[in-house]
Amino acid sequence: MQYTPQHFLFEASGGVATLTLNRPERKNPLTFASYAELRDLFRALAYDNDIKAMVLTGAGDNFCSGGDVHDIIGPLTKLDMPGLLAFTRMTGDLVKAMRACPQPLIAAVDGVCAGAGAILALASDIRIGTARSKTAFLFTRVGLAGADMGACSLLPRVIGQGRAAELLYTGRSMSGTEAERWGFFNSVQEPEALLDAARDYAQALADGPTFAHGMTKKMLQQEWNMGVDEAIEAEAQAQAICMATQDFHRAYHAFVAKQKPEFEGN
Amino acid sequence: MQYTPQHFLFEASGGVATLTLNRPERKNPLTFASYAELRDLFRALAYDNDIKAMVLTGAGDNFCSGGDVHDIIGPLTKLDMPGLLAFTRMTGDLVKAMRACPQPLIAAVDGVCAGAGAILALASDIRIGTARSKTAFLFTRVGLAGADMGACSLLPRVIGQGRAAELLYTGRSMSGTEAERWGFFNSVQEPEALLDAARDYAQALADGPTFAHGMTKKMLQQEWNMGVDEAIEAEAQAQAICMATQDFHRAYHAFVAKQKPEFEGN
Amino acid sequence: MQYTPQHFLFEASGGVATLTLNRPERKNPLTFASYAELRDLFRALAYDNDIKAMVLTGAGDNFCSGGDVHDIIGPLTKLDMPGLLAFTRMTGDLVKAMRACPQPLIAAVDGVCAGAGAILALASDIRIGTARSKTAFLFTRVGLAGADMGACSLLPRVIGQGRAAELLYTGRSMSGTEAERWGFFNSVQEPEALLDAARDYAQALADGPTFAHGMTKKMLQQEWNMGVDEAIEAEAQAQAICMATQDFHRAYHAFVAKQKPEFEGN
Repeated sequence: MQYTPQHFLFEASGGVATLTLNRPERKNPLTFASYAELRDLFRALAYDNDIKAMVLTGAGDNFCSGGDVHDIIGPLTKLDMPGLLAFTRMTGDLVKAMRACPQPLIAAVDGVCAGAGAILALASDIRIGTARSKTAFLFTRVGLAGADMGACSLLPRVIGQGRAAELLYTGRSMSGTEAERWGFFNSVQEPEALLDAARDYAQALADGPTFAHGMTKKMLQQEWNMGVDEAIEAEAQAQAICMATQDFHRAYHAFVAKQKPEFEGN
Repeated sequence: MQYTPQHFLFEASGGVATLTLNRPERKNPLTFASYAELRDLFRALAYDNDIKAMVLTGAGDNFCSGGDVHDIIGPLTKLDMPGLLAFTRMTGDLVKAMRACPQPLIAAVDGVCAGAGAILALASDIRIGTARSKTAFLFTRVGLAGADMGACSLLPRVIGQGRAAELLYTGRSMSGTEAERWGFFNSVQEPEALLDAARDYAQALADGPTFAHGMTKKMLQQEWNMGVDEAIEAEAQAQAICMATQDFHRAYHAFVAKQKPEFEGN
Repeated sequence: MQYTPQHFLFEASGGVATLTLNRPERKNPLTFASYAELRDLFRALAYDNDIKAMVLTGAGDNFCSGGDVHDIIGPLTKLDMPGLLAFTRMTGDLVKAMRACPQPLIAAVDGVCAGAGAILALASDIRIGTARSKTAFLFTRVGLAGADMGACSLLPRVIGQGRAAELLYTGRSMSGTEAERWGFFNSVQEPEALLDAARDYAQALADGPTFAHGMTKKMLQQEWNMGVDEAIEAEAQAQAICMATQDFHRAYHAFVAKQKPEFEGN
């Protein structure tokens, strides 16, 4: 993917892209324009064959402070209902695009992770954090509902309904230690080791059977509100497709030859 | 809300109501009449503009021992099927009403929290407990299923499917420490600090954007079995509604003026 | 149930069956034939009146290494799409049968618990493990998706969406300590105490109100993707049925007589 970003940093090598929110002096807030560019980037990823996994991070010891009060909240107070809905749908479309692209997304979370920033982490597949990080779904602090960009659907499935209710009603910060204990973070790293840990994680996935990874991601989404029996049939079909890939054959032949398989994502 | 309770204590001030089950000599059991009154109270709350959050608690160091064996189980053994179903629907209607009213419900749980009492805690939004409390879904002990008042739907989402299965199959007590560890309790307090902690929690919510809190509660319920994409669209609509409230504007202007916002719930 | 197994050990007494995967020199792998026999056994259990609970375990300090690479993976690489789908549907039918039979299933997990073996544990109702056990959903290691036999539906509900995603994308082992902490194992036992703990657990359930236990299991499945209100109505019906059983009456009369109830499962 040749891609020249307008509102953040983006680099890719070895199948792994790193997207860095990069307004560190403001703790990397989002704007109307950066929301839209992020949405379009994730939509484009669905058709990209070079990038196999992505790390999301922020510059300068913070992940993302969310929608900027001056750049976003202020203008929103002046919009009519169709304008408001156009905005909430745009931000929602960003989450839809993050869940729809086949690449596993690994959020590397240090420092402030707030509002829409917390949603970016939540909408990722894997979250690696630091003990000092503070994740807050602070919509309530600006008079809004915790129901933003899918939070009431996604967060309870990650940390449980009771803990999610607390974070969404109160807007309080979840510490890095809580986040690991509750299953929001997959692991906690030292700040200086965070980005490497996330990139290593992404590289390991990019070196694996990426077509199958995309199917895992798709089915985790697809089965969200299926019954168990329907999910089992859906997986029978999905896995039969994966068994028709060369990666499955490569793994078998490597195993027989006592070698490490070389996956190609097809 | 002017309300003179028949079967429990009820007081309200500053937007926070406290409902106290009050038969401490029997550990605050429920009766046919108290079930019905609770159901009707929560139904009425849906239309009340004065109460913004509620604390549920029990008198005398216990939360609630559930349906009384003599007052409820005995008479149930004499009912025909329509009579049994009328009872299970009435108790289920209590949970439906607790989930349908817009006020966040904070259960303050000490001592015995058993059977239908455990369901009252489970059906609350937030649960604060004590280490010595014992929460038991003990329907199995009287020969019944764990499927009571929505437990098989609610409990797995709070503490996970495996732990919920254990509590529902065996009826064993969950200790306060387990409850906090598993996400059933949002926090554990010393017994003498429990009620104040719950009231402070409720007061903080009552002082917040209560219209938005009601939307958070509604969407946590509404999205229970939606797909992710449908949930995101539902939240786009819900949040656009909240962005049209004055509380959203109040929060923005307070932020700009570097003041604490005064929310009014509209 | 008179049953002479072909591909594993099976014994039953006092209402409790123990099924032991028994190729310890290979860590108890599954084969086409053993998959099919397991499926048929669990289907038959749905109509059996003697067995009230079942322990699943493996011989020789391991639970199950999953589908054998030589016996299963190799032949799969030679199948056409209808053949592949026939296989994935057969393995899925095993999980469907495990979830559909009314008996609570208790997995006793030591040592290796991998691939389809991990699914057997996951598809059980209760899991008791050892600290040294290693549970791995390692489908990705052979180039496949984590979407196998319902894993993308079942695992997130047990340990949370984020932790499930990690295990399914990476195939890494979950330690026994993690499994207990995350809610996959209901408890961790010393290896030499594991089987007795699982049998005692099963016996306690078999001595309980087994008709009601079957209803608990059914409703945990049935309500998987219901809304809360629909689940409450479903439980009102299910529990009314259980209130019409003799076990409910036995429990009441035993309570009044200050005796321990003798449940008969009817």
